[in-house]
Parts: sequence; structure tokens; C-alpha cells
Amino acid sequence: MKTLFKSIAGSINAPEGFKSSGVFCDVKKLGTGKGSNKGDKRDLALIVSEVPAAVAGMFTTNQICAAPVKVCIRRVAAGKAQAIVVNSGNANACTGKQGMKDALAMCRVTATHLGLPEELILVGSTGRIGSPLPMPNIRTGITKAAGLLDGHSDSADNAAEAIMTSDSRPKQIAVEFKLGGKTVRLGGMCKGAGMIQPGMSPTGARPATLPLHATMLGFITTDAAIAPKALQAALTEAVAQSFNCITVDGDMSTNDTVVVLANGLANSRPIGATGFRNNADFKKFQSALTHVCLELAKMIVRDGEGVHRVVKVIVEGAASIKDADHAARAVANSALVKTSWHGGDPNWGRIIDALGYSAARVVEENVDIGYSAPGSRKIVWSLKKGQPTSVTYERLCEATHPNEFDLHIRLNLGKASRYIYAADLTEAYVDYNKGDVTDPATLGG
Amino acid sequence: MKTLFKSIAGSINAPEGFKSSGVFCDVKKLGTGKGSNKGDKRDLALIVSEVPAAVAGMFTTNQICAAPVKVCIRRVAAGKAQAIVVNSGNANACTGKQGMKDALAMCRVTATHLGLPEELILVGSTGRIGSPLPMPNIRTGITKAAGLLDGHSDSADNAAEAIMTSDSRPKQIAVEFKLGGKTVRLGGMCKGAGMIQPGMSPTGARPATLPLHATMLGFITTDAAIAPKALQAALTEAVAQSFNCITVDGDMSTNDTVVVLANGLANSRPIGATGFRNNADFKKFQSALTHVCLELAKMIVRDGEGVHRVVKVIVEGAASIKDADHAARAVANSALVKTSWHGGDPNWGRIIDALGYSAARVVEENVDIGYSAPGSRKIVWSLKKGQPTSVTYERLCEATHPNEFDLHIRLNLGKASRYIYAADLTEAYVDYNKGDVTDPATLGG
Repeated sequence: MKTLFKSIAGSINAPEGFKSSGVFCDVKKLGTGKGSNKGDKRDLALIVSEVPAAVAGMFTTNQICAAPVKVCIRRVAAGKAQAIVVNSGNANACTGKQGMKDALAMCRVTATHLGLPEELILVGSTGRIGSPLPMPNIRTGITKAAGLLDGHSDSADNAAEAIMTSDSRPKQIAVEFKLGGKTVRLGGMCKGAGMIQPGMSPTGARPATLPLHATMLGFITTDAAIAPKALQAALTEAVAQSFNCITVDGDMSTNDTVVVLANGLANSRPIGATGFRNNADFKKFQSALTHVCLELAKMIVRDGEGVHRVVKVIVEGAASIKDADHAARAVANSALVKTSWHGGDPNWGRIIDALGYSAARVVEENVDIGYSAPGSRKIVWSLKKGQPTSVTYERLCEATHPNEFDLHIRLNLGKASRYIYAADLTEAYVDYNKGDVTDPATLGG
Repeated sequence: MKTLFKSIAGSINAPEGFKSSGVFCDVKKLGTGKGSNKGDKRDLALIVSEVPAAVAGMFTTNQICAAPVKVCIRRVAAGKAQAIVVNSGNANACTGKQGMKDALAMCRVTATHLGLPEELILVGSTGRIGSPLPMPNIRTGITKAAGLLDGHSDSADNAAEAIMTSDSRPKQIAVEFKLGGKTVRLGGMCKGAGMIQPGMSPTGARPATLPLHATMLGFITTDAAIAPKALQAALTEAVAQSFNCITVDGDMSTNDTVVVLANGLANSRPIGATGFRNNADFKKFQSALTHVCLELAKMIVRDGEGVHRVVKVIVEGAASIKDADHAARAVANSALVKTSWHGGDPNWGRIIDALGYSAARVVEENVDIGYSAPGSRKIVWSLKKGQPTSVTYERLCEATHPNEFDLHIRLNLGKASRYIYAADLTEAYVDYNKGDVTDPATLGG
């Protein structure tokens, strides 16, 4: 897939007509610069389109949903937006009526500085749950950020840094491709390292079909011309194949949000609101968006808190897609499986144990379990039809030694399949997340 | 409850007519004595009643179910048993037809040595999944164990040691109480420290009502006279209130088994197979058995791999018992909640986040979260109706500092409640379970 889309520089500023900035306004009110959000680490980002853009979004299905998420769900439904303001260091979740006032105030202050209608501003927050936002700091931050808006890639870098919490590095991508002879661009940035098992839907309502489950935030820009309805269809599918297929620790956040703005400034042939599903332009846009989302999603797992190994858990032959999802998530979130990955131990006993207690239908005598290099179909099987193969333990250890490998599980009960990118569980994850109560700056979200 | 039942010495040998033994037969075939199963740690136990006994059992609902569990399910259904043979170090799970042959051979060899019918012998195994049992060693072990059978408490101690895997200490209890003027006794031993989230049912079939979820093994003896049907009813209820209410790591084992033998040698007034539910003797026996199971279950959580803190998660006011169970297990198994307990961080944000993504119905504005000392109703509330209280962070840290505390969650949506004894997640858990692939003796189940 990578070969279809040319990587370019510029991140979210790569598409025509987008500007961004990232500043420090001390959201954690640390002053002294202790803990993970050290010194003057940027903590407020702005993304602005020159013209109103079509918008689509995907939001956490957690029943406890932060105020900024509620604001975005409402505004994305209207189909149009022009700017996004985001802070890190405080999730503005479980903050009651004050939280909603603060989220709306962030939009209003941004609108005033940009000279835009308030309704075209989206808002995001990430960080610890349950403390009110330090609004004087946030206001100062927005003023600073509005003054520094710029279309260069440095500014996009600053924005990507400003949305980080426990992330060790910024996560960005941009690609270009042709739609009907015109070059269009897609740019994206995201954050997330813990509380990662997103399960997003377009309205935050739980879908009936899949039990979906980060704080992860993702912001995507494009200069393609596409109607909001087609953009939402493309994003829903792209997220289903990417952000909703990752887990670091199995904890779904109150704030998960992915938003895409499409401002049409590439002057590409417009993708309309009806009949787009069979449209070749739509299909190409869809696969580009899926590519961007998947690459960003994989960056999140690789940069997960304390993560040492990343494993793509591939379940095939399940009786239903729901079963495939249950089976993949049971394995991907099992403490015992994840610690064995950390140790490089090809312990298929723990894998089949997790399959057995999952909600998926599993028949011991049908189960195959094997390993391969990422993307390879040269599979070393440790189990066939529920029985150990003659492959040696040493050979299996070689297969589970690399920092990334694929785990193949065949249930041989049907035709449904599902993959999940999962992380191992390490002492470093525990150490990071236990924090130090005597130094609140070390305490995570 | 403790005051109702007098604690006595003797463990599983305390009731009349029971003998036991525990020996070393090198199930792991280590020879050199490396790893967790060091040197000559006992690994095979026998428990024998002088006369045939009524039997009841509870078994893992994992779809991947070890051969010894399958044998027990069948034999317990017949209502009568006289001896139990158990090995540690190898689970005899995912071992196919050979596994079933080996489980039956363990029973046959035991029957021959004891001069009993094969059908009266039960069998248990615990340890790593997927390797065939070393039958020559097992046979030697049974011969040794049969020769050492004894009713003294030293022998019971040896048996309790022989069923240990990653346990740091044996887990035993015995109580006595009166039934109709006669003194009866209940003794019990169990093992378990990892792969602990039992969800057992009488037949291994998943109950429709509760999504239940160690390897834990529990063996209980009594000299009370009780019909198998009444004994099964008492055990089902006792396990629902004890072993099925604990979690160390959220992983349900392939081998979870609790078996009780009642040989009637106390000559107490028999509890019959019908109309027992309103019988005062049954009620008293029921509460004694629940007490024994709960005390044993708590020993498992306290001795969980790397466990530092034990938290009783109490969910009240749920819309249904299923919701209460979902909510309690989501919190009890959240990696982020468990690491915060390890750090002594009263991070209610992670708790409400887990409630929100659970399958239980949760309304942010209704949620109360608080802490107390074990068993106390003096609750320090951190959250009331979804809003932080005025209690200081320091006061909350005091509440979550002790090695054991109760976490109170009120959903305020209904009347259903559920408690789960849960463990924190520590670096020591990860370190233990990652093992060292260059030294297979360090690799856990």
C-alpha cells in the first residue's frame, strides 16, 4: 500500500491552505518544571484552514465522555469547521458543568482571535481526568498560538509536540496522490501512548455490530474536495481499519477523537454526497486516508508506554466478525500473553488459554497458532489442530525475538477475520503508570 | 462470620477419616533443581477418605479445558468419590488424546495402590500448558505418596505444599461447628497465584446469567453427612461468593477446579437430597463452607504473583447483577487502575474511565467513588454524583496507602451489587511472568 502514496514533508501543513502552531502555556501549572511535562514543553496547539472545510469525526464510545468530545460531536454533525484548538496536560473530563463552559470558552476565545464564527471551531483535550482547566493559562496560550500561526513544517512540528502527553516523540505523516489529474495532499498528526484501546464511532454511540474499544487524538487535514457525508464514510472505514485496531493496555479513554478537515483548495474534482461508494476518486481517497490512519495508529503502539515489542494479532477463520474481534482482543489484552511477549517466550499455552475464556467460539481441536515476520506468509506453526507441532522451542524463540512480529491464529470455524496491533507489558509500563504520589507531576492520566 | 466457626488445626486432615500425603517426583524433570520449582519441592499430593464420600465440584468455564478437569466433571456427576491425586508443574492441558490417557492412568495407578474402584478417584493437574505429563515420574510419585498416607497435620502440610506452583506459601484452613448437637469439621487447601480470574460452574458449562471468569485448585474435606445434590448446591453458592469473586490478572485458567468430599463420619444428622434449602443444618453448613472458601480465596489474592496491595472492589446500585459484575471486573482488571493502586495513587479518573468502557450501564452524573478500611462503612468519598468532593488529595492517599482497603463504587441506577477481590499490578508480576527463555525452568504456566 505504501508504494501507492508518495510521502511528503509538512505534516498537517502539507495540504494547501492549512496553518498551525504549538505553544507552552503551563496547563499543568507546574512552574518548577517537574515530572513528565518538563519545563516549557508545548501544551496548546492550533490548526486553521484558510477557508471553511468539510469535517468528519470519530469519537470515544466510553459512556464517560469529556466535555470537548461532546462539543465536537455536535459541531462535526453540522459538516463544516475551520479551526481546531487542543490542549495537553488536562483532559477536561469529569469536570461537570464547568468543564462544558470551559470547552466552549476555548472555542470562543479561539474564534475571537481568528475572526471566525464560534461554531466553526473544534476543541480537544488530553491529560489527567477530573481537574478543572486552568483557563487563564489556556487563554494566554490561545493568544500566543494565534499569533504564531504559520504554514511551514516547523509550525506543524510544534503543534504535534503540543498535543503529546506520555508520548516520547511526535507522530506525523503526509502523503500526496492524484485525483482526476490534480495533486491532492493528506497530512496527519496524532498522540497517544497509554489508556489506548480506542473504540470510536461517528456519534460516540456504541455500534451494535462490534464491541469496540486510547486517549488518542488524531487530526488530519486534506486539500481534496469532498462532501462531509463522503468524508465521514471514508473516515469511519479508515478508523475501523486503524485506530480501532490497536491496543496498548486495553483501557479505552474518555477523550478519544479523530477529526479530518477537507478544505478543497487543491481544486480536485469534487466527491459528492451521494453515489460516492462506486466512485474511483472516493476509493482512492479512502485508501489514502486508511493508509494515513494506519501509519499513525502503528506509531502509537510502537511509542506505547514502556513498550518493547509490537505484535500484530491476526485471527482468521472465526465464526463471525464479532468472534474474531473478541478472540483478537482477549489475546492482545491478556496480562500473561503480554508479559510472555516481553520475555520473548513463545508461550502458546497462554494464547490458547485466552482464546478459551474469550467470548468467541473456540474448539481446541481446530486451533492453529503460528508466527511470522511482519506481513510475511512464511509462518512457523507452534500449534496445529490444537496439538504442538514438531517445531523446536528454539525455533519458536527466534520467531518471537524481533521487536515486531505477526501472530497468526486460525480458529477454523468460519470465514471471519480481524487484526489488532498490540503491545507487550513491561516493568517500564508499570513503573510509569504507578507514578509517585509525593510528586503529582509524575502522575499520568 | 469468623466468630461463628472455630478455627482448628489439621487442614484437610482435620475431619474424621481423611488422610493425605505430598511427595517429590520431579514432574518438571529438572534434576538440577533450577527455577521456581527448586530442588525437591513436593509436586504430587494424595487425599483419601476411609469410606466413599459424597462429592461436589466446580470447574473452569474456559472452552479450552484440561484432561483432568474433563475426568473430574464426569466423575463428580456420579455423586461419589474417595480419593484425589494431584500434580503440580504440568497442567496436562492441550495434550490431546495422550493427555486424556495420562489423566485416566493417574486415576488407575492410584486406585491400584489404594485398592479402590477406579471410578472413585479424582485427578487434578496445574502448571505449564502443552507438554505431556512425565508418566514414569508420576507413577513413582503415586507409589511414594500412597505409602506415606497419614492423618496427621504434617501430611496435610505436605499435600498443600505439593500442589503449589508460583505460590510463595501453602494455603490451608480448618474449622469446626455443630450440626444437631454433633461436632463436624471442614478442612481445605488451595493453590493459585497467577492466571487467576476463576469463573467456575458445576459442569464447566457457561452459565447464562453471569459472565464468569485462575489456575486455582481447591480441595475441601468434611465429615458432615450430606447428600451429593445438597453438597453441590452448597458448593455452587460458596464458590459464587468466593473463588469466582477474585482476580489477580484477569486470565481464567484451563484447569480451575474446586472439589469437596463429605464422608459423613462425624455421624451428624444427614442433610438429604430434597427440601434442604430451608433446613437449618444446610444453612449452617452452607455458611461454614462459604467461610472456608472465602478465606482460601483471599489467601490466593494476597499471595498473587508480585502482589503488593489487595483491594475489595464493591459495586452497589447497579441496574442488574450482570452490570454490577461487568463494572467490578472492568475496574478490577484495568491495567491503569491496578498500576495506580501499586503507586498508592487514588486516581479515581482511571476508575470512572474503566466503568465508562465496561459493558455495564453507567451515568457520569450518578457515580460515587470512595475508600474505606476493610469491612468498614466509614467511607472517604473522592467523587459524589460524578463530581470531585472537597476531600484533599493527601487524605485520599492515606485511604489508599494500606496493603488492603475497600473501594466503594455506587452507580445509583438500581439495586444490584457485586464485590471482587483484586490485586495491584507490579513490576514483580511482569518480571516473574516474562521468565527467561534461556532457562525454561523459570517459565510460568
